[in-house]
Amino acid sequence: MSRYVISLGGNALGNNAEEQKKLLKYVALAIYPLIEMNHDIVIVHGNGPQVGMINLAFSESSSTPMMPFAECGAMSQGYIGFHIQNAIQNIMLERHIKRPISTVVTQVLVDEKDPAFQHPSKPIGAFYSREYATELEEKYGYTMFEDAGRGYRRVIASPKPVDIIEKESILSLLNDKHIVIAAGGGGIPVIIKDGGLIGVDAVIDKDHASAKMAEIIGADELFILTAVENVFINYNTPEQKALTSVTLKELDEYLMHDHFKKGSMLPKIEACMNFVRATNKPAVIAQLEKAVEAFKQKSGTIIHP
Amino acid sequence: MSRYVISLGGNALGNNAEEQKKLLKYVALAIYPLIEMNHDIVIVHGNGPQVGMINLAFSESSSTPMMPFAECGAMSQGYIGFHIQNAIQNIMLERHIKRPISTVVTQVLVDEKDPAFQHPSKPIGAFYSREYATELEEKYGYTMFEDAGRGYRRVIASPKPVDIIEKESILSLLNDKHIVIAAGGGGIPVIIKDGGLIGVDAVIDKDHASAKMAEIIGADELFILTAVENVFINYNTPEQKALTSVTLKELDEYLMHDHFKKGSMLPKIEACMNFVRATNKPAVIAQLEKAVEAFKQKSGTIIHP
Repeated sequence: MSRYVISLGGNALGNNAEEQKKLLKYVALAIYPLIEMNHDIVIVHGNGPQVGMINLAFSESSSTPMMPFAECGAMSQGYIGFHIQNAIQNIMLERHIKRPISTVVTQVLVDEKDPAFQHPSKPIGAFYSREYATELEEKYGYTMFEDAGRGYRRVIASPKPVDIIEKESILSLLNDKHIVIAAGGGGIPVIIKDGGLIGVDAVIDKDHASAKMAEIIGADELFILTAVENVFINYNTPEQKALTSVTLKELDEYLMHDHFKKGSMLPKIEACMNFVRATNKPAVIAQLEKAVEAFKQKSGTIIHP
Repeated sequence: MSRYVISLGGNALGNNAEEQKKLLKYVALAIYPLIEMNHDIVIVHGNGPQVGMINLAFSESSSTPMMPFAECGAMSQGYIGFHIQNAIQNIMLERHIKRPISTVVTQVLVDEKDPAFQHPSKPIGAFYSREYATELEEKYGYTMFEDAGRGYRRVIASPKPVDIIEKESILSLLNDKHIVIAAGGGGIPVIIKDGGLIGVDAVIDKDHASAKMAEIIGADELFILTAVENVFINYNTPEQKALTSVTLKELDEYLMHDHFKKGSMLPKIEACMNFVRATNKPAVIAQLEKAVEAFKQKSGTIIHP
């Protein structure tokens, strides 16, 4: 029996509740083999499109209050967590397998001094006119930027995860062989201020949160499931090559030569490298549809120490 | 050491994120004595105003999809749960007490054949024009009703809780002395259909959900914290009398004479009676501000077998 963290992309969850429910049936089937083998499993999911949708609903609605981004993230954990636990429960019911599964609302500690707070880079929510963008900057202190001619958008910081506040609850459930959904959307970002934890408007990369989770709970392997079968070097050139097995040292070399796309493959690779470096255990980047093969290390890119 | 379920009203949580955070500091302080004494605690909270706000945001926003009510409930669990666990964590940090606390996203099973589904009675969300109400009835099969001249509103069913799907996760955490927030808003209502669990548009009374929770987890006492100090008979008449201690038999008598207000004190009393009848253990209805005294059975209305 091994302990795994599985990281799922928010882009694989569709654009509304009905789509999300349908798509999660396939996700649940993809993950099911690990459940059946009785492995310890923590599922971390993305929430990019979903938290954007929630934030947008509150921005556009005329009679509801402004909703801070941390709170929108908390909502997305409830919304997506419900659908994931429900989808997996239903497959287990169908196959007469009984393992408890639940979602833990998770805060993730970030460092107030993280340089990311000086350079907000993650666009979120709706597009606004220049006038309204200026109003938001003045009224709420938001950082707004012009997004490729489509209007003005808010940008927030993407700091690195430092600790998982609810780690003991996650461990307690894991130790009882429960399946846990946690740190959804990378977790609700909190900082320590005046001795207390307070939510901040930021977004933690979910792959980095998965790597931190895997490190903290003592995972044997980190699986990042995504839309492509492998990590590629020389991507989109005649020399394109899929990586199946790669070491930290080799990756360092590829990184130096800018092989991986920022905002896409790069954060996944960096997250895996962090986990592998911290634990000396492997990490895998693989396609969701080939998860079964990836769990057997027969598909995807395996990153070794 | 005893095991308690504490039920908190959604009306005590304010109308936006800032208010909710402030008010929850007081709630956390009120509950803190039980935490310090190392009792097992499950907190169940209401979500009436909050889930209404979430539902309204999606209804009013022009570019987000329609959000089913079950999913809005799941969002409210994340949103309120985050603030409750954060508020209690911060008091513990301040006082150098260390007990893990987390929120479990909770589905609550209801019976598809519950008569409540034939008579939707709970108004939710926005007010609409007659024309739009008719459109919603035809398009989504909603039940709409005219609400006191203010326009048309949707009504949904309020079925009774039958089981708590994530009960094993809640018990696992309790047994490790973790504080658990669960079944927020009465839980996300699900029914069994074709052998699987599916979310339904309904709302489960949070006091009834608390009573079911208390029964299932083997609580020694159920505390329903509300805005008034006691249950009253002959309320708002010259014969008004506060009840401090009352038996099931006495309550049956009062119920026969319609002493308690539907939609207000009645569901709390019925929920307590269900718990007391099922377990032979006491239940208390008390004022949030006097929680400390109520925990010592020195304030509130105690319901005995």
